[in-house]
Amino acid sequence: MTQVYLKKKISRRIENGHPWVFANEVGKVEGPLEGGDIVDLLTHDGKFIGRGYANPKSQILVRLLTRNKSEQINEAFFYNRINTAWQYRIKIGYQENCRLVFGEADFLPALIIDKFNDYFVLQTLALGMDKWKPAIVSALEKIFQPKGIYERNDVPVRELEGLPQQKGFLSAPFDTRILINENGLKFNVDIENGQKTGYFLDQQDNRRAIQHIVKGADVLGAFTYTGTFEIHAAHYGAKSVLGLDISASAVEQANQNAALNGYGDICRFTEVNAFDVLKLWAKEGRQYDVVMLDPPAFTKSRENIQKAITGYKEINLRGMKLVKPGGFLVTTSCTNLVQPDLFLEIIQMAAKDAKRTLRQVVYQTQASDHPILWGLENTHYLKFLIVQVI
Amino acid sequence: MTQVYLKKKISRRIENGHPWVFANEVGKVEGPLEGGDIVDLLTHDGKFIGRGYANPKSQILVRLLTRNKSEQINEAFFYNRINTAWQYRIKIGYQENCRLVFGEADFLPALIIDKFNDYFVLQTLALGMDKWKPAIVSALEKIFQPKGIYERNDVPVRELEGLPQQKGFLSAPFDTRILINENGLKFNVDIENGQKTGYFLDQQDNRRAIQHIVKGADVLGAFTYTGTFEIHAAHYGAKSVLGLDISASAVEQANQNAALNGYGDICRFTEVNAFDVLKLWAKEGRQYDVVMLDPPAFTKSRENIQKAITGYKEINLRGMKLVKPGGFLVTTSCTNLVQPDLFLEIIQMAAKDAKRTLRQVVYQTQASDHPILWGLENTHYLKFLIVQVI
Repeated sequence: MTQVYLKKKISRRIENGHPWVFANEVGKVEGPLEGGDIVDLLTHDGKFIGRGYANPKSQILVRLLTRNKSEQINEAFFYNRINTAWQYRIKIGYQENCRLVFGEADFLPALIIDKFNDYFVLQTLALGMDKWKPAIVSALEKIFQPKGIYERNDVPVRELEGLPQQKGFLSAPFDTRILINENGLKFNVDIENGQKTGYFLDQQDNRRAIQHIVKGADVLGAFTYTGTFEIHAAHYGAKSVLGLDISASAVEQANQNAALNGYGDICRFTEVNAFDVLKLWAKEGRQYDVVMLDPPAFTKSRENIQKAITGYKEINLRGMKLVKPGGFLVTTSCTNLVQPDLFLEIIQMAAKDAKRTLRQVVYQTQASDHPILWGLENTHYLKFLIVQVI
Repeated sequence: MTQVYLKKKISRRIENGHPWVFANEVGKVEGPLEGGDIVDLLTHDGKFIGRGYANPKSQILVRLLTRNKSEQINEAFFYNRINTAWQYRIKIGYQENCRLVFGEADFLPALIIDKFNDYFVLQTLALGMDKWKPAIVSALEKIFQPKGIYERNDVPVRELEGLPQQKGFLSAPFDTRILINENGLKFNVDIENGQKTGYFLDQQDNRRAIQHIVKGADVLGAFTYTGTFEIHAAHYGAKSVLGLDISASAVEQANQNAALNGYGDICRFTEVNAFDVLKLWAKEGRQYDVVMLDPPAFTKSRENIQKAITGYKEINLRGMKLVKPGGFLVTTSCTNLVQPDLFLEIIQMAAKDAKRTLRQVVYQTQASDHPILWGLENTHYLKFLIVQVI
């Protein structure tokens, strides 16, 4: 097996458990190195650190799969890792729908698998993981006897790995519009054309967190996508729910989901630019008992972090102004580029500008089926906050 | 009314909403100033900031009750504030038992009121609040028609305010051993002799967070006090639960609570020093599926912060070693002197020493009936963490 030696002085990141090895941290490579090869990683003086897959075309030259010298990377390895990930989800209370594999946090770097009852959607975001797709599919078949497996590899990040963007069936074809149950509600999931893997499982616990505050409330939701937060609000007893999204197809899906659950009379979704409308309505003095904001990430790169800060601040400022005194703002951020402390700071800045006092009611991260590995910043990405706006 | 003028240059703390004014921030006082007097607080050039109570004997000279110039501090003021606090708890889903008033976070500095169904326990921790005890009791009577009100002012912090430590009835006497329901379980609360107000309501939501991980598990709990976490574990399907506490009376209460809920055969509580026993058992190689730690604060002063860090690290290190690979550690910290980031760092240090990898499953603060006001550090005190220990 090809051996990759680290330089003498490298960051403690790898030693502390981080599975990524950057090209500039490598001193020498002994043996041939083709993209996707399994290699051994060694210290500069030849001590075994771990084993992983390599990609000379990527800035991340090696991603570790194991630190156990006797563990071979083969079909059984993927079966065991995926099965362990499944046992973990069962243990912490997830069954029908969950993120089955959350990449690095499940010690399977660059692999995402979402489970929607009997259907599985996967992403292999690095070349070395992509090569093991047959082993991954085989493991899913053995563990779950799934009704369908679909690949949603239509993501730009694959290009950094020299991989094409693609999507399609990894099992016999099936109807990709499926139905899932969540918190006693039903939702259509479009695994072929929906955002990411078709549905945001990471908010499934957070959606329950609104249950008390929406009772009898007039609720405004912005960036509603498939309308799940809003339909939960109706389910938990909201008097009226208005949802805003800029995408016509999202609004259509959301209205369908509302009707599916019998809340077509309470929930209404409209195709508008939430940024503009919130500003206008704040000026007009409209007021809601609860305002819910689930905006996009605003940026994908650290260089544009200021753009994200400005975006989050602006939208939260506008949202806050629409909350009746004593009402609630539900607000989230889904990018790891804005870490929790910064997110709370941004909300505080918005409150200052809005001349409102906030009380923190609930603060949570993503659902527990997306476990957080400390030191791996990308595993800690979702912030979910409920504040009372006084 | 006596007028307290701030110095020209003071911290932005007060402007940003903090209700405390330290003696060294005050430029001059116009008018007589007796302990407990209501005073107006002004900027150095005479602009109204707020109104609050003063105590010349305390380092905190003034604690603001309102920033509204037209709001008078009288019996109606306390009725309104307490009623608002109650409406807030109802809104966020608390009914039978809750922290009804959480001091500064409810804009009633130094006042704590816990509601245990029809019984109320209060603490007035500053002279200026203590003087309004009759108004507070009267408000409780009007809003709740309580079966009993008790004062647990047997706390050393009152001495900083020149107040005596005392406890006793603020209503007609009643049996101070009461019974509460929490998450479908029953617990005895000794409001006369229990710790603090008799029961730790701040963990009531966190106790539900263990429900999945304890199923079928052998559970070890340390610093169990009245055994609430442990009895919840039994309720959620633990195979066996062993609870450790150094206090004989706590162990007795915990065993009674277990029997009360029909879990006397699953839960066993023992009077031992958890520090010693955990160390010994770790050496002996004992292993549990779940270890739960709810230790005391270790320090009450910022000067002794290192003592708290060492204490938390040591106990978590010992606890972690007792967790089977893939099992769970449930760990908490109840002092605001150790803020969240530091707490997580301490747990990470312990993991490094224990040579174990952690995955964060759940991170929460105190229950939402103890709201957090950003910038008021003492309102953000409880950290509750579940990690998988690999």
